[in-house]
Amino acid sequence: MKLGIIGLGRMGGNMLKRLREGGHEVVGFDVSPDSERDVDSLDALVSALDAPRIVWVMVPAGEPTDQIITSLGGLLEEGDLVIDGGNTRYTDDQRHAAELAERGIHFLDVGVSGGVWGKERGYALMAGGEREDYERALPIFETLKPAGVDGLVLAGPVGGGHFAKMVHNGIEYGMMQAFGEGFETMMRSSLIDSPAEVMTSWRQGSVVQSWLLDLFARAAASDPTLHEMPPVANESGEAKWMVEAALELGVPTPATASALWARQTSRGGGDDTLRVVSSLRAQFGGHVTKG
Amino acid sequence: MKLGIIGLGRMGGNMLKRLREGGHEVVGFDVSPDSERDVDSLDALVSALDAPRIVWVMVPAGEPTDQIITSLGGLLEEGDLVIDGGNTRYTDDQRHAAELAERGIHFLDVGVSGGVWGKERGYALMAGGEREDYERALPIFETLKPAGVDGLVLAGPVGGGHFAKMVHNGIEYGMMQAFGEGFETMMRSSLIDSPAEVMTSWRQGSVVQSWLLDLFARAAASDPTLHEMPPVANESGEAKWMVEAALELGVPTPATASALWARQTSRGGGDDTLRVVSSLRAQFGGHVTKG
Amino acid sequence: MKLGIIGLGRMGGNMLKRLREGGHEVVGFDVSPDSERDVDSLDALVSALDAPRIVWVMVPAGEPTDQIITSLGGLLEEGDLVIDGGNTRYTDDQRHAAELAERGIHFLDVGVSGGVWGKERGYALMAGGEREDYERALPIFETLKPAGVDGLVLAGPVGGGHFAKMVHNGIEYGMMQAFGEGFETMMRSSLIDSPAEVMTSWRQGSVVQSWLLDLFARAAASDPTLHEMPPVANESGEAKWMVEAALELGVPTPATASALWARQTSRGGGDDTLRVVSSLRAQFGGHVTKG
Amino acid sequence: MKLGIIGLGRMGGNMLKRLREGGHEVVGFDVSPDSERDVDSLDALVSALDAPRIVWVMVPAGEPTDQIITSLGGLLEEGDLVIDGGNTRYTDDQRHAAELAERGIHFLDVGVSGGVWGKERGYALMAGGEREDYERALPIFETLKPAGVDGLVLAGPVGGGHFAKMVHNGIEYGMMQAFGEGFETMMRSSLIDSPAEVMTSWRQGSVVQSWLLDLFARAAASDPTLHEMPPVANESGEAKWMVEAALELGVPTPATASALWARQTSRGGGDDTLRVVSSLRAQFGGHVTKG
Repeated sequence: MKLGIIGLGRMGGNMLKRLREGGHEVVGFDVSPDSERDVDSLDALVSALDAPRIVWVMVPAGEPTDQIITSLGGLLEEGDLVIDGGNTRYTDDQRHAAELAERGIHFLDVGVSGGVWGKERGYALMAGGEREDYERALPIFETLKPAGVDGLVLAGPVGGGHFAKMVHNGIEYGMMQAFGEGFETMMRSSLIDSPAEVMTSWRQGSVVQSWLLDLFARAAASDPTLHEMPPVANESGEAKWMVEAALELGVPTPATASALWARQTSRGGGDDTLRVVSSLRAQFGGHVTKG
Repeated sequence: MKLGIIGLGRMGGNMLKRLREGGHEVVGFDVSPDSERDVDSLDALVSALDAPRIVWVMVPAGEPTDQIITSLGGLLEEGDLVIDGGNTRYTDDQRHAAELAERGIHFLDVGVSGGVWGKERGYALMAGGEREDYERALPIFETLKPAGVDGLVLAGPVGGGHFAKMVHNGIEYGMMQAFGEGFETMMRSSLIDSPAEVMTSWRQGSVVQSWLLDLFARAAASDPTLHEMPPVANESGEAKWMVEAALELGVPTPATASALWARQTSRGGGDDTLRVVSSLRAQFGGHVTKG
Repeated sequence: MKLGIIGLGRMGGNMLKRLREGGHEVVGFDVSPDSERDVDSLDALVSALDAPRIVWVMVPAGEPTDQIITSLGGLLEEGDLVIDGGNTRYTDDQRHAAELAERGIHFLDVGVSGGVWGKERGYALMAGGEREDYERALPIFETLKPAGVDGLVLAGPVGGGHFAKMVHNGIEYGMMQAFGEGFETMMRSSLIDSPAEVMTSWRQGSVVQSWLLDLFARAAASDPTLHEMPPVANESGEAKWMVEAALELGVPTPATASALWARQTSRGGGDDTLRVVSSLRAQFGGHVTKG
Repeated sequence: MKLGIIGLGRMGGNMLKRLREGGHEVVGFDVSPDSERDVDSLDALVSALDAPRIVWVMVPAGEPTDQIITSLGGLLEEGDLVIDGGNTRYTDDQRHAAELAERGIHFLDVGVSGGVWGKERGYALMAGGEREDYERALPIFETLKPAGVDGLVLAGPVGGGHFAKMVHNGIEYGMMQAFGEGFETMMRSSLIDSPAEVMTSWRQGSVVQSWLLDLFARAAASDPTLHEMPPVANESGEAKWMVEAALELGVPTPATASALWARQTSRGGGDDTLRVVSSLRAQFGGHVTKG
């Protein structure tokens, strides 16, 4: 079917290609003139589509998505459908949906997982919104998702797609932290010759076999100690939102949160806490900590 | 090749079958007369094998394994090989190896993952010991492991096999906790219609796809809220040992430890901590907590 | 000086008494006719004070405080001062201040610590707002606070008082959890005859001496094992808000959060997580967990 | 009474002075010729005392204490009493006691808290051993402890004194971490003008008032942001041992452990975990983390 995509970065660009390969007619737009955009304005994008239109938004969460939604609200018509495939916080989805609904424009939020591999492997999609809208966009979802029975779900009402993706990413944080803790414990033990070899061997027959373990094996193939990688990691927002949502819902999330905190710590979080600890030790014990 | 297996429980019994199907000649012994044992004593097992013998021990860790190792030390001959495939703590392996080495008996410790699925799927094996001994037992390992390049590793010297398995199980704890935290967060949210459906959908295309997720989908197929399962879980030892080893090595393991603590808490761990908290609140705030 | 107090519960009632004992002229109002209120309506309270008035609000956070602030906005005059001494979330303070400022009414948020002991011992006060307003109310603060140099601070602009109190309570959670973990560890050890006696002995000479330890000694005097207290604790909001604020600020708060989660767990938080864990164990290991 | 002290470092030296001021006759020995020792060998120390002797050992835990205990076993006589006041792990106490008991020498383990302040303020003492031995040494304890009813306890049998001290220090870790988390959260908030002033104000009237808070106020008086202190802290062993003991006893200690991990992380613990996380992110997301 015919649709527009706004945002042709790593994710949006790849999705456009997968959709075209799947036979869809896609009009791409990006603010950057250096992108492979088909049109050079939102107006032009809207004009290039026939009502009722489908527009997939794939831009950074927050301000950029807010602006696009507002602009589309002014350009689209009753019956058109906006799909937000970015990493928007679920608490913003209802606001976006309401803003568009005022003009009769429909809205779906869709969490997308799969990273740079999605173009070949297919993307896991989690949608939130009305079933009717979900079914209208189904041909698009069927092309983006992997072949097979899984990889696509209507998670719930508006916000549910991004809520599901947020939880997905929180789980991903916890799994990565678990692999990391295991790797480091083996790195420090004299009983393990090559932690990377041990972990790679778990790719078959073991309870922890997983795609993340396959990716670990790829990374470790060229750098078995991973010491070319700096010991820092950024946080992308979703795990933080998940921990916050869980706090409000009364759900303890220590594994998820500890994964998040490890990343925050690698960026200086916790430094002032340590200063308090060291100051107190100096006061009562005469311990002087050398930096 | 010919070997003996001591311990014909769920794990040992299945491994014996897989080995026989793979063409090995296996003599099985178990203390229980109700087992499908081939001989009714350790003596008989040893007599049924030709030197240099290979004996695979698959009994519960601790006392039972200690006793079998000591008995084998008295029955076996120089050049024989004992393989401990149970869940022995790595700190006990060197003691066992030394005890056997006094009589010229060789020793390998092998961590085995795969659960009840291993019989069909193959077991992931992690060995610790001398390469020479490892290579002697390789035909056995090749049959037990899954088809393919992975699923088998010589992790390091004696103790390394169980150390690797311990870390493996610690990671497994962390991954299971991560999935659990995500599931519960979705269970409490009004934005998710069916958490089980969402998680099942991640089996393709997503970053968290894994064998554990496949198993979750199996469990949730018949009980989507999992409410037939009581909210308690036992700990099996390995995660605790891993956290202890990591503490000594200076490696923070918050995700692994929180998974362990969640299980300990489900069995009453933390109750007296809460009593202190409630008592203090009652003292300063006049809050009375109702049980 | 003359002031009104709205809310005559445990905290408000005691504060009124301490203020009267300190020579202030206080008019008390509470919605409950069973309270020892001086007037039976907000209107009457406002009429009983002379402009520029000072009104201290001491009602539950959220809805009740919102309503009182809105009502006062309609009744008070330019130049009057409202002080919110309740446990309002700091994010609500600016809204309240703005609402009142529209009519020229001044606002301070004041976090109050001290519990039922404050009446005798004095209350620790943390204020947020303009220095000018703070100084206007200083005679009230001086009476409420303990004798001595500490116990009162202008923490920052509007919101700062409740932010400081929120952090204070988060610290309190962490300290209580630390005492609890120590107590329970001793309760389970055969090396400690009476954990309560040990902890009580720390009241002098030790690094952990503190008011909370004094309160522990009081509680343990009549119930040394604390087993009359149920192993459950409620959360009051502030620690949760602190962890959320810290997440947004990039500050890891594992000690505070773990104290909060212990309480949430005692109320059923984490149950579905454990169901996932047990279900997975049953799938791969054939383990059946008994409830 | 008359006693010997072995180890005249910061703690031992101060304790000797407090004992002399209290009227005891103390013979001091230290391996360092630069110390203010009274005798220059263990032999000389033993000779300078009359049987039945009391010898207080105040040297670093581990190897140094092991050696002194063994040496004393060879020098002392039946009926003499050795008191280990150092930070020995409780698991070593029974070994020491048994070694000395073979020659009829009595043993007490005594945990000592108070730091450099103990000389003036008195030390909190926790003893493990036989009541009879405890009572023999009571005059010494009475001088070392603070004036007042608290500060001294016979915690349990041999090992109990150091177990109690270990738990004490674990609690101390948790309390310091809690204060640190609160301080850092305020440091990052625009709503708090001076976190140090806020915390200092809590010294009166608040629930968190404590000696640690007094020490914080001292440290912050000259350096309110604590930025002269490097963001690193060492671990001293006890909190690690407590977490390990608790793991074995089935007691979750997340607050204590998180305090320990924060210190380990400040010394490079967790770095390889982060390398795994970053490597995986690079693999699936094409994210490149800059160091």
